[in-house]
Amino acid sequence: MNKEILLKNRPDGKPSISDFEIREIDEPQLNDGEILIEAQYISVDPYLRGRMKDQKSYIEPFKLDEPMSSALVVKVTQSKNDSFSEGDFLMGNLPWKKIQTSNGENLRKVDANQAPLSAYLGILGMTGLTAYFGLTDIGEPKEGETIVVSGAAGAVGSVVGQIAKIKGLKTVGIAGSDEKVQMLKEKFGYDEAVNYKTTQDMAKAINEGAPNGVDVYFDNVGGEVSDGVLANINHFARVINCGAISLYNETEMPTGPRVEPILVKNSAKMQGFIVRNYQDQFQDGIKQLATWLQEDKLKFEETIVEGFENTPQAFIDLFDGKNKGKMVVKTS
Amino acid sequence: MNKEILLKNRPDGKPSISDFEIREIDEPQLNDGEILIEAQYISVDPYLRGRMKDQKSYIEPFKLDEPMSSALVVKVTQSKNDSFSEGDFLMGNLPWKKIQTSNGENLRKVDANQAPLSAYLGILGMTGLTAYFGLTDIGEPKEGETIVVSGAAGAVGSVVGQIAKIKGLKTVGIAGSDEKVQMLKEKFGYDEAVNYKTTQDMAKAINEGAPNGVDVYFDNVGGEVSDGVLANINHFARVINCGAISLYNETEMPTGPRVEPILVKNSAKMQGFIVRNYQDQFQDGIKQLATWLQEDKLKFEETIVEGFENTPQAFIDLFDGKNKGKMVVKTS
Repeated sequence: MNKEILLKNRPDGKPSISDFEIREIDEPQLNDGEILIEAQYISVDPYLRGRMKDQKSYIEPFKLDEPMSSALVVKVTQSKNDSFSEGDFLMGNLPWKKIQTSNGENLRKVDANQAPLSAYLGILGMTGLTAYFGLTDIGEPKEGETIVVSGAAGAVGSVVGQIAKIKGLKTVGIAGSDEKVQMLKEKFGYDEAVNYKTTQDMAKAINEGAPNGVDVYFDNVGGEVSDGVLANINHFARVINCGAISLYNETEMPTGPRVEPILVKNSAKMQGFIVRNYQDQFQDGIKQLATWLQEDKLKFEETIVEGFENTPQAFIDLFDGKNKGKMVVKTS
Repeated sequence: MNKEILLKNRPDGKPSISDFEIREIDEPQLNDGEILIEAQYISVDPYLRGRMKDQKSYIEPFKLDEPMSSALVVKVTQSKNDSFSEGDFLMGNLPWKKIQTSNGENLRKVDANQAPLSAYLGILGMTGLTAYFGLTDIGEPKEGETIVVSGAAGAVGSVVGQIAKIKGLKTVGIAGSDEKVQMLKEKFGYDEAVNYKTTQDMAKAINEGAPNGVDVYFDNVGGEVSDGVLANINHFARVINCGAISLYNETEMPTGPRVEPILVKNSAKMQGFIVRNYQDQFQDGIKQLATWLQEDKLKFEETIVEGFENTPQAFIDLFDGKNKGKMVVKTS
């Protein structure tokens, strides 16, 4: 039975299951030039929350009563397109449907022998590339410097810390549980790790973890966690604004300390980005990440949720930090 | 009679006259290798407010019961140093004293025939260089883009708008009186000008002045004026955080809308700086500014206050926007 997942309501605040609808649909007709594809893995990502709002952004909002979409790994089950064969695994941005057709545009083949298929949605996909380009291009990391990473146990943050380590930085990670803090140190090689949920004074905790001050701050979280980090930045610090998951469900404009005086005083930079800005360099980035993986210099963590129907819940769980590393749904 | 101006109290909020003390002192003894110098012009600048606080910053705080200091133009009245002659005009960072000695270190000669002496504290000095390097290096202005400048009638802002015009941008200036708004358009060639004091909705006013959105924002002011501009930035916008005069007298940490989501959504950059970061390139900058001045492509405005003793009041008046262009004190 074929199914799709639609956006039913635009959430006010934190998304809930009732904002989605799972609908049974017919299996599509395959036309010449098309392929029939079956979802294997679905990526759920914090940035999708922005697309659920009806507002101008770098990407079109989702439409009500139409399928959500994100990065999927799919299997070709039938092909009427010479570029693809039955059994090929592909990835690309696709609607949340179990079975669908495609003309193959903007889909690229992935190799199940080189890495687990789910890795193409994480360490070898958008989140790995996000970590790589944000850190290296905007962060300009230099050996001996100190980096702080928020959301450090997440899909992006866990990779940032490891690349920073490869580049010779001291790494301080921030996460939301003792279990994650332990993982930061033991699995991802962070030098210091802070549990923001049990820390009263973030500024003090960062000062203790980074006594020489913060040269690079890779921010996935925003909000009060960031306030504590910004209180410790050095002259010429670079703040990489990758995401602000702590703010995505706010219903009113979130407020906080003004950053202008901090930036002026420290000749510091804050810069936002999306990974698509680096589209021309994706192949280079994937090659570098794959090399580090093979050399065992990068480890990755995944939280794999089973079942196509559980995609909405997996997405919602991101906002409670229930994932370690990349959150993906295994559709069957 | 020789005099000096000391910092008497660290101000809480807006500085007042009683935070300063004017003290009569002896004329100094001139030793070998030294010059005797007499203050001609004293620069008063918003950034000095930061040095009156007892806090770590890019520059040492002023000490209580010691003289304030800033950029001065001085005249050599006696010389026991072969590098300087009686009658030379020099500029440099010096204490607020009518008459003092110096070994000449970090002072450079200025030419009274090339430009009025006061200009070396403004358009050919720190504020001109601040406008030039902030705009060209951090702002990366491109022909056809739109720039918004806050504090546009001030010493820095008035120069930024004109350089942006030379570079082919559409310029929108923000200032705090109708008289200044008129000056922005008539003297400094701004395409659009907004009086923030009579504007209810800054975001809407900026949207009307910059209907294609804001590519570059040169911010001298910070605070609510900036909130209105940031609501209108384009993808890949560059915000140059030069100053935040609206916040310098706040006694509590000023708060406002969080900028992280805006930066992420627009792949935008905010970057603070101080002109000293470009010290190695000062001569190039001055040469360019002097050329534009000679070609009549740059105009400048000064507010000249008479009398050494009025230096504290001139400084205080900056925070009420009583200056047009560069505020300087003519000491005699």
